[in-house]
Amino acid sequence: MTMPTPTPSTIALGVPDSGIVDIMNYGRRRGNVMPLWAGEGDLTTPAFIREAASKSLVDGETFYTWQRGLPELRQALADYTNRLTGQALDAERFCVTGSGMQAIQIALQLVLDPGDNIIIPSPAWPNIVAASGVRQANVIDSAMPFVDGRFVLDMQAIEDAARDPKTRAIFINSPSNPTGWVADLETLQAVHALAEQHNLWIIADEIYSRFVFGDAALPGTDPKRAPSFKDVAPLSPRIIYVNTMSKNWAMTGWRVGWIEAPVELAQRVENFIQYSTSGVAAFMQRAAIAALNEGDWFIGEQVARATANRDLLVETFAPLNRLQVSAPDGAFYLFFKVVGETDTRSLARRLVDEVGVGLAPGTAFGPGGEQFLRMCFARDPEHIADVANRIARWMSINP
Amino acid sequence: MTMPTPTPSTIALGVPDSGIVDIMNYGRRRGNVMPLWAGEGDLTTPAFIREAASKSLVDGETFYTWQRGLPELRQALADYTNRLTGQALDAERFCVTGSGMQAIQIALQLVLDPGDNIIIPSPAWPNIVAASGVRQANVIDSAMPFVDGRFVLDMQAIEDAARDPKTRAIFINSPSNPTGWVADLETLQAVHALAEQHNLWIIADEIYSRFVFGDAALPGTDPKRAPSFKDVAPLSPRIIYVNTMSKNWAMTGWRVGWIEAPVELAQRVENFIQYSTSGVAAFMQRAAIAALNEGDWFIGEQVARATANRDLLVETFAPLNRLQVSAPDGAFYLFFKVVGETDTRSLARRLVDEVGVGLAPGTAFGPGGEQFLRMCFARDPEHIADVANRIARWMSINP
Repeated sequence: MTMPTPTPSTIALGVPDSGIVDIMNYGRRRGNVMPLWAGEGDLTTPAFIREAASKSLVDGETFYTWQRGLPELRQALADYTNRLTGQALDAERFCVTGSGMQAIQIALQLVLDPGDNIIIPSPAWPNIVAASGVRQANVIDSAMPFVDGRFVLDMQAIEDAARDPKTRAIFINSPSNPTGWVADLETLQAVHALAEQHNLWIIADEIYSRFVFGDAALPGTDPKRAPSFKDVAPLSPRIIYVNTMSKNWAMTGWRVGWIEAPVELAQRVENFIQYSTSGVAAFMQRAAIAALNEGDWFIGEQVARATANRDLLVETFAPLNRLQVSAPDGAFYLFFKVVGETDTRSLARRLVDEVGVGLAPGTAFGPGGEQFLRMCFARDPEHIADVANRIARWMSINP
Repeated sequence: MTMPTPTPSTIALGVPDSGIVDIMNYGRRRGNVMPLWAGEGDLTTPAFIREAASKSLVDGETFYTWQRGLPELRQALADYTNRLTGQALDAERFCVTGSGMQAIQIALQLVLDPGDNIIIPSPAWPNIVAASGVRQANVIDSAMPFVDGRFVLDMQAIEDAARDPKTRAIFINSPSNPTGWVADLETLQAVHALAEQHNLWIIADEIYSRFVFGDAALPGTDPKRAPSFKDVAPLSPRIIYVNTMSKNWAMTGWRVGWIEAPVELAQRVENFIQYSTSGVAAFMQRAAIAALNEGDWFIGEQVARATANRDLLVETFAPLNRLQVSAPDGAFYLFFKVVGETDTRSLARRLVDEVGVGLAPGTAFGPGGEQFLRMCFARDPEHIADVANRIARWMSINP
């Protein structure tokens, strides 16, 4: 007699594969592909950051540590944030997480029960939507209309969704991955007012705030940064910020992030950390302290590179009739549509095979972005110039 | 007008603080306490393991890597497991996680939907119960009777719980934290048969398998190890193993673990990793490879120390009338009861204040263990001898 085997949980059966990993796996098998599919640049973490971790290892910091993070790191997070935004936030608002992704997971657990609604404007980074699914929340995809080469927030659709009593939260990612959309102060103010009116939580993902181009930057900031919810609703009791060391300091592989929330939530954040990963290695945290306290010059260099690449790409692609380009106001992605191509998963594979360039298909980013491709341009400008030319040439011979 | 503030989720409000962290925080404020409250020894991670991480950092391995773990690490996990258990398991069964705790979290997500039951024999490590609560499962605490100085599994109670159609899984931790209980082959066989009969999943936590004393070891093993589900049901499609680098290689602070499951589940495990922490730093994984491939000598030294400490503690405490000691067959904890003391949370605080020793109160470990204290003895034998004498003296003057 064959015994039956138990089935996995509903959630395990329902959780989607990543559409970004799908193309990466396809491309890796082929080899020799310029990898612009992931949200990662080509720079190794600066040596002074790596050395801080190695020194801590030599010093023997290999024991359990504070679940919320080392006090010195929580202070460094507060100092960095205050320096950037002109606030005077207390270190008690900050807890260290094992990646920005984990910060999102914990934020979702903090505010959502199964069956609750969360509004997520799309196109959106797919992991936010998938993690909401793991939480068994209903995701209300609020597709952003693409008007005159720009994505815009559909405030009416958001308000309609907010009226549903099951709606508990809205996720705002500005500057946006993948669209490059950057919310201006008026928009942030409107979203916060709407959240107050309907008593919603806001999960604010401002991880790309340093990567902002042209007029999208908040006037008068030095270094430049995007407008923040902190500018319109400082210390709002309904905002939870998620963040990461990954992008600013080229620490994608490290898996260190943070969550910033009203202090009343700190013990609950600690408990979710305790029962999921139980903290972040102390030697990783030493590296994060070095990055936050001494890494501004490196962010400046990365932003300069991204700005030059952004301008070059827009300049090269804008004249091409077959392309509709969303000129990004922030982040480090070019999100563009190839006229006449509706199956972007297959298009991304052709570009791997025929151009040797790895882009993420818009199908990975939900409603409103299916017909786009996403290119990460946090990379050596020579590579980006070469890729731009190769794609332009391919477009010209594949009309 | 004051705006209302949204409430956290039901789960966020319900997730308990850790009773172990509670006493640690109490003791840290006092200072000068011998810290035997956590499941952590006093040895720094061996230098060759730390150096493997530092070398990887010098080599610039700071980028995103495989969600399931480096292929070399997955192979090293398979090799280690096969060496220890005499199996020929495929590396595809193994996925790397950001701690043993995360392996447990993912295992629970794999098999449980909200409202499902999971059977957890208690006393149990509190994080397993709390993580099941975060999953919104119903925990059926199956209290282990304490008979003649030993905890035993209540198979009848487990069978009764298994009959409930909402029961989907049973969690078996052997050797057990905190009780030191070690399942023999007959018990493992009986649990697996019962799981087959009621079509349950088994989550097997055998992380202390190398720490096994006297007759509890599986006969004929070299190095010694505890009986495993692998001995009675190799390749069972219903068993998910959770494990960690923390204990064997003194890597508690690193937060690296693994999950071993039927290969059909591997993509689902990867997805849960993707949407929670998105993988483990490559340089940490290099350290884990070094530990697994070259660290057997270190485990041997740790086991020898633990064995000597275990014998000394049993010898010192057994004659004391006020103590009832569960002589541990495995793991590295002494779990003992002080006759006449019913409030172990307050007793643990008195021992901090009056003896300078930090123990975990049994209240942290659920039904059946409330009146016990847990002492971690993975430590310098001189410290353990000193602590044993101090506690014995305190008992004699506080009758």
